[in-house]
Amino acid sequence: MASPLTYPKAKGTTVNRYNNRATYDVKAIHSIVNESSVLHVAFAPDVEDPFPAILPMIGTMGSFDYPSAGLDEPLDCYLHGYVSSRIMRLAASSPQGLPVSIAATKVDGLVLALTPNANSYNYRSAILHGYASIVEKTEEKLWAMELITNSVVPDRWKNSRVPPDSAEMQSTKILRVKITAASGKVREGGPHDEAKDTTREDVTGSTWIGVVPVVEKLCEPIPASQNKIGELPNYIADYVADMNANAEAYALNAARLP
Amino acid sequence: MASPLTYPKAKGTTVNRYNNRATYDVKAIHSIVNESSVLHVAFAPDVEDPFPAILPMIGTMGSFDYPSAGLDEPLDCYLHGYVSSRIMRLAASSPQGLPVSIAATKVDGLVLALTPNANSYNYRSAILHGYASIVEKTEEKLWAMELITNSVVPDRWKNSRVPPDSAEMQSTKILRVKITAASGKVREGGPHDEAKDTTREDVTGSTWIGVVPVVEKLCEPIPASQNKIGELPNYIADYVADMNANAEAYALNAARLP
Repeated sequence: MASPLTYPKAKGTTVNRYNNRATYDVKAIHSIVNESSVLHVAFAPDVEDPFPAILPMIGTMGSFDYPSAGLDEPLDCYLHGYVSSRIMRLAASSPQGLPVSIAATKVDGLVLALTPNANSYNYRSAILHGYASIVEKTEEKLWAMELITNSVVPDRWKNSRVPPDSAEMQSTKILRVKITAASGKVREGGPHDEAKDTTREDVTGSTWIGVVPVVEKLCEPIPASQNKIGELPNYIADYVADMNANAEAYALNAARLP
Repeated sequence: MASPLTYPKAKGTTVNRYNNRATYDVKAIHSIVNESSVLHVAFAPDVEDPFPAILPMIGTMGSFDYPSAGLDEPLDCYLHGYVSSRIMRLAASSPQGLPVSIAATKVDGLVLALTPNANSYNYRSAILHGYASIVEKTEEKLWAMELITNSVVPDRWKNSRVPPDSAEMQSTKILRVKITAASGKVREGGPHDEAKDTTREDVTGSTWIGVVPVVEKLCEPIPASQNKIGELPNYIADYVADMNANAEAYALNAARLP
């Protein structure tokens, strides 16, 4: 069996602190991106300004050339945005692509230890570096729009009015980010206190320690007042149930690990 | 009554797209930061590198000079980190403070419309620009450590082993970010489709529309194997109950708005 693919380390993506929590595994990093409902995307500003630009975006990993590629294979990051936004203008004027840094973080639990210094979160985070270019080919753009729509709710694309009309195709831009380096960080388990506290009965006898698991929960869908469909379709109901079950299973398992 | 305070607009924080969703209101922006369990902080890299540095951090708004200041008053952003991390090194060597961009986003619902182009999220997001300096005064540092600890679980500080010992004080650094500009963006309500779809019975008759509310849920706390406290303390149980009730109330209300 081939070794799992890993991302190359770069100055800005190499994990130094708590590097036992680090991962460069392609599948782990792609999973964190795909399970995050929002990505934060940073890039150098186009004006004399010391502050990096940063904005929340929706995006997902995928391969147009090999659409059946798994999360453990090389993938691009596709981001969705509006035609006149700054990131789209900058990407359009960058022949090699606009350098962007993408961050995704999910909190899985509040880890409460005997002393604040040992408190932590259970979490999964990923940082990716890559070059963002506007997708020009209509076929790839439509494929990516479907991919991103279905990343929010699977099968939503074919269960709503498609394809986009020409006004919609013009107002929407898709960025394809070629990833050049990436890293992830995962923390799971209970609190890890030091002997200086665990040996003090006055401390252990007065301080509750453990994990408050955190999940992103999807609540019962609420139909719009204009909705004409009597019953919630199965593809939505099943997704809500599956997501909640998986999220809770992950967070509870992470909390129960040592 | 005085007008509510607002943040000045800057090139990188002025909202152009969907500016009816924009806010510069100090209280709204501070609330989004404080309700986000993780912030993403971006800054220019210290090496020849086209990619902004970006990392997840824990932080909260507060005023050391006026500790009783409300969320609608001028506040700094306090961030917590490890002494040898890159952001701490750069902040330590920046006499005017390290320029940082801080992003906080909470997803409150998946908004499903008749056509993918009209899909959206209900969300609250904030972008802040400011200058980050390391807190040197012990009194302010301890105050900020307590503030940040209690932002994760209120009253946790006094219910665990404090104060930090000298090794803990040395290994932990606190950044104070003086905010120079900021903006927020809030989307709530159901889907907004256009007449081209709402007038088509084949579309409205086959597409469920509405909102899947999303909440960050705190699950039943799980004691560590080493925990010696029989019953979960009220300050944790009450916090879990309050947070869940508030989060669900917010997301459901946002989903039911027009």
